[in-house]
Amino acid sequence: MSGHLAVVGLGPGDARCLTAEAQAALVGADALYGYIRYLERVPERAGQSRHASDNRQEGARAAAALAAAAAGARVALVSGGDPGVFAMAAAVCEEIAAGPDEWRDLDVAIVPGVTAMLAVAARVGAPLGHDFCALSLSDNLKSWKTIERRLDAAAGAGFVLALYNPISRARPWQLGRAFERLRGQLPPETPVVFGRAVARGDEAIAVTTLDAADPGSADMATLIIVGSRETHVIARPRRAPLVYTSRSARGAA
Amino acid sequence: MSGHLAVVGLGPGDARCLTAEAQAALVGADALYGYIRYLERVPERAGQSRHASDNRQEGARAAAALAAAAAGARVALVSGGDPGVFAMAAAVCEEIAAGPDEWRDLDVAIVPGVTAMLAVAARVGAPLGHDFCALSLSDNLKSWKTIERRLDAAAGAGFVLALYNPISRARPWQLGRAFERLRGQLPPETPVVFGRAVARGDEAIAVTTLDAADPGSADMATLIIVGSRETHVIARPRRAPLVYTSRSARGAA
Repeated sequence: MSGHLAVVGLGPGDARCLTAEAQAALVGADALYGYIRYLERVPERAGQSRHASDNRQEGARAAAALAAAAAGARVALVSGGDPGVFAMAAAVCEEIAAGPDEWRDLDVAIVPGVTAMLAVAARVGAPLGHDFCALSLSDNLKSWKTIERRLDAAAGAGFVLALYNPISRARPWQLGRAFERLRGQLPPETPVVFGRAVARGDEAIAVTTLDAADPGSADMATLIIVGSRETHVIARPRRAPLVYTSRSARGAA
Repeated sequence: MSGHLAVVGLGPGDARCLTAEAQAALVGADALYGYIRYLERVPERAGQSRHASDNRQEGARAAAALAAAAAGARVALVSGGDPGVFAMAAAVCEEIAAGPDEWRDLDVAIVPGVTAMLAVAARVGAPLGHDFCALSLSDNLKSWKTIERRLDAAAGAGFVLALYNPISRARPWQLGRAFERLRGQLPPETPVVFGRAVARGDEAIAVTTLDAADPGSADMATLIIVGSRETHVIARPRRAPLVYTSRSARGAA
């Protein structure tokens, strides 16, 4: 079988966020698959076919890309951020597990990228500078009870939290409930970062506190970081504040 | 003040792992600072000064880079992986917090990169495909009791674990103790990935189980991923197995 599937992380935004390896995988592909908003970030090239799909069709999109690779094409399946973090790589593995035997013979490469939490953290300093968790607030594929249990466990044990998929039209109340839950575990002055559309034209970054965090400030393109007791803010008179988590947790519970 | 400090993530290994933004920051610098093993990855350029330091001197290295920027230089402080994850960005923030007022005026940019756990995950499939934690096993700056508490909380709540700094000459027993602790929480067949020196000449990847995981297989350049109950392995007759964590956690506790 001569086909090939690369699952390519585009990073958070513009082409400057791409690794050289990701760039090469995009240029070398016969066929590009992906969610339409991500495909739009990839310049058109002669001789490449493009197969855009809607959001929330991860399984069908992964299966279509695998089928094209199995038919002999060099396929790049694009993913925002890193394909391994709440993105397309797991969907591809799930389809291989459930799919025809020949898909297990395919040459599949995952090309990593800068995932949203790293990009947001970089904009404000180093809030992920010590132990942290990445947690999706979407209860489409797990129960809200599981999410609450994970919020409690992570915050209670002193992890910083990066919250993916915080809110959407179909999931309007979950982020507010998550903040309430975290207020039961963490001091009101705990730093909270809202990072929206990093490295894109409509980027917006805000630093606030858990007490003041407003779920209405987030949308689908927002990644939220909630600090731990070791997360601090440095006020800077002429610049935006820096947020960082101490490398030392000597006083941690 | 005309100086500038970029804290630049080199990604896990060779130049193909670098983003375009990181590459530009390296090329545009007057002075490069960094741990000697990371600086060695950056090609020499005429007119650039290089200031290598030993491992474990993060604070002094960050302060030297800040002082050079405050004196007017364009400085790039290099970091392996992503500077925000168990790396130099937090050390820079700590030095700014403790340092002279003028350091708060400095133009400081963090340039994100592909951190080790993303690179290791990409090599084997999508083990970080759902909720996960990143935890350093170094007890230099936090107590071992805190680490055990975090291992228990994360594994007990169903997070996949990425273990940074698993072992060193000065910390020989911690990884074995961590595996023991996790065996109390997770089934023996839980997938474990050892990823060593990804994207470097001496890369080595191994997939095993929690039951069989041998701390002797790890060294300072190894990143370890311990799965959750939702982490699966796909056997492939003619290829290395794929490891992934289901996007769905419907049955999770």
